[in-house]
Amino acid sequence: MENRKIRVAITQGDVNGIGCEVILKTFVDPTILEFCIPIVYGSPKVLAYHRKALDLPTTFTIVNSASEAVDGHLNVVNCNDDEVKVELGKPTAEAGKAALDALEKAVAEYRKGLFDVLVTAPVNKSTIQSESFNFHGHTEYLEQRVGDGKKALMVLCSNDLRVALVTSHIALKDVAGIITKDLLKDKLVLFNETLKSDFAIPAPHIAVLALNPHAGDSGLLGSEESEVISPVVEEARKEGILCFGPFSSDGFWGSGSYTKFDGVLAMYHDQGLVPFKLLAMEEGVNYTAGLSLVRTSPDHGTAYDIAGKNEASEESFRSAIYMAIDVLRHRRQEKYLLRNPLRKLYFEHKDDSDKLKLDLTEE
Amino acid sequence: MENRKIRVAITQGDVNGIGCEVILKTFVDPTILEFCIPIVYGSPKVLAYHRKALDLPTTFTIVNSASEAVDGHLNVVNCNDDEVKVELGKPTAEAGKAALDALEKAVAEYRKGLFDVLVTAPVNKSTIQSESFNFHGHTEYLEQRVGDGKKALMVLCSNDLRVALVTSHIALKDVAGIITKDLLKDKLVLFNETLKSDFAIPAPHIAVLALNPHAGDSGLLGSEESEVISPVVEEARKEGILCFGPFSSDGFWGSGSYTKFDGVLAMYHDQGLVPFKLLAMEEGVNYTAGLSLVRTSPDHGTAYDIAGKNEASEESFRSAIYMAIDVLRHRRQEKYLLRNPLRKLYFEHKDDSDKLKLDLTEE
Repeated sequence: MENRKIRVAITQGDVNGIGCEVILKTFVDPTILEFCIPIVYGSPKVLAYHRKALDLPTTFTIVNSASEAVDGHLNVVNCNDDEVKVELGKPTAEAGKAALDALEKAVAEYRKGLFDVLVTAPVNKSTIQSESFNFHGHTEYLEQRVGDGKKALMVLCSNDLRVALVTSHIALKDVAGIITKDLLKDKLVLFNETLKSDFAIPAPHIAVLALNPHAGDSGLLGSEESEVISPVVEEARKEGILCFGPFSSDGFWGSGSYTKFDGVLAMYHDQGLVPFKLLAMEEGVNYTAGLSLVRTSPDHGTAYDIAGKNEASEESFRSAIYMAIDVLRHRRQEKYLLRNPLRKLYFEHKDDSDKLKLDLTEE
Repeated sequence: MENRKIRVAITQGDVNGIGCEVILKTFVDPTILEFCIPIVYGSPKVLAYHRKALDLPTTFTIVNSASEAVDGHLNVVNCNDDEVKVELGKPTAEAGKAALDALEKAVAEYRKGLFDVLVTAPVNKSTIQSESFNFHGHTEYLEQRVGDGKKALMVLCSNDLRVALVTSHIALKDVAGIITKDLLKDKLVLFNETLKSDFAIPAPHIAVLALNPHAGDSGLLGSEESEVISPVVEEARKEGILCFGPFSSDGFWGSGSYTKFDGVLAMYHDQGLVPFKLLAMEEGVNYTAGLSLVRTSPDHGTAYDIAGKNEASEESFRSAIYMAIDVLRHRRQEKYLLRNPLRKLYFEHKDDSDKLKLDLTEE
């Protein structure tokens, strides 16, 4: 089993938000450097600016590429040729471009195998967007750039709660139309695999939420439960996935049923995010499952309102780093465990009795 | 100011659920009879059945109509000519019919002015429904039966949290299409009036939630925020309503912003109900605002899974009774206070000086 130190790439996100602050705060205590080699993609100058403004003691080392990253240091790869102007709390095109440059550089270095996992600081979806570049979210961006045809699954995680989304960054009016049997089945299968391999839960129990109020109330308030969700849940259970539902969303969360499941599959963004953030704000992590690249992020946004005020908590960002490391370890462990589960036994047929030959081994 | 004891009508709800249990448990302690005269609409036999099965000491008095209700007693009006068969935990047509009969009888007696407020135990929407009778929910039913053209507003209440819904019992796919500027404005104005007159908050601060994830992310994830919600919020604020938003739903709940407002206006059922139930399960009350009739109900359903097991908590039902009483008192108080806010002063014009005449009064 591979045991070398995990290389964690970090993208700086929107420089006008709290991204730099939470990165710097995470690495104030150097203990975290014992678990990983961090490589920030962004602007060393901007990082230094935030460090000075917030009076933080974090030190970092500038490198040209993750290939030069130094163990025991917070490494920073400069991704911006031009100077980046910081305007705290403001959405600016310049900050959007800087965030995208950092992300693109990180993706390029991931393709070269220069790091293991990626943790992204929040960006502003409007400013990172341009006429030539359509950005719906990190999840969709990475699916397209490094997915190799695989589909991503957005999973919100805290210690005991894992909430996956069937649909994520789309308008509410489009949600019902997009949820087909195929899409739901894909997400359910992927969620089940993720809980097994990435979270090391051998037989995960999954709750599937209803789309409509009162789970459609036997068809009075919508037919998606009976026509789409229930058939998929039944089919998946026949195939061995321990899934249950569809559960009426308000009752499910209100009664505490979520504590009885390893994962909850929500139909749309706010259905999963609202209860998740209520239950796990500050410690919540957003995990992009389903891709070869392990990517996590804190569950907060750019938080312009408190940018530069030294009020941001780095807890979610630190959790994001630890979760990325955990997921990679679980994956490696699973690979190791499945490599050769039981030694094959070879028999010699000479006479009527079979004789076990222990000196033979598999090629 | 009217100070006679408030007459509280209670409909029994689905006899196969936990309705009878929570009613009986609420009146175990007779202290509550000091605040109101309760009149249950339902079946005395069924109530006696549940009382025996659950071994509860609650006593009640059978009357023919609320007009005969006895102070200091739990009164029960028999609404079912035939015997009603109880099948605990099962949705049956018989239970549906019994629930509807009780509701209809209560509405008829309300029209005669025989009680002041109504508290409804939960029904099963499927069984109460029939080919000739379309039941979407108590809110819609009462709007139609006793609304006199007024529109109802569903408000979920706990001690410090009041969440109103722009749309309630409709399929998710229809939500976006139904929310027009007019509808939203009506609900916002009504919510503001409700908070003032029914909850005695003189200048309520109202948060308006967004429809789409990330409040539409500047139009990337839906246009309803910029085209419908923001214009209505601005217009209402110009008219003196202290409303704010639209707020991105997940961040709003996750960051605790809801604690800063007197009321939260949610766009659809689960957007309001999921966080409300997470925060206020057991003590939550559903209040139908906007009608002359004050109606409340507990925020739980029939709970078939625990019917007859003596596991149901009556807390929400008791809160529903107290809230109905509070609302009526606030309304009466407002009426009293606004009746004649300041005595008019009459002047006599005789010479150059005006002379105040205190012996004149208004007709």
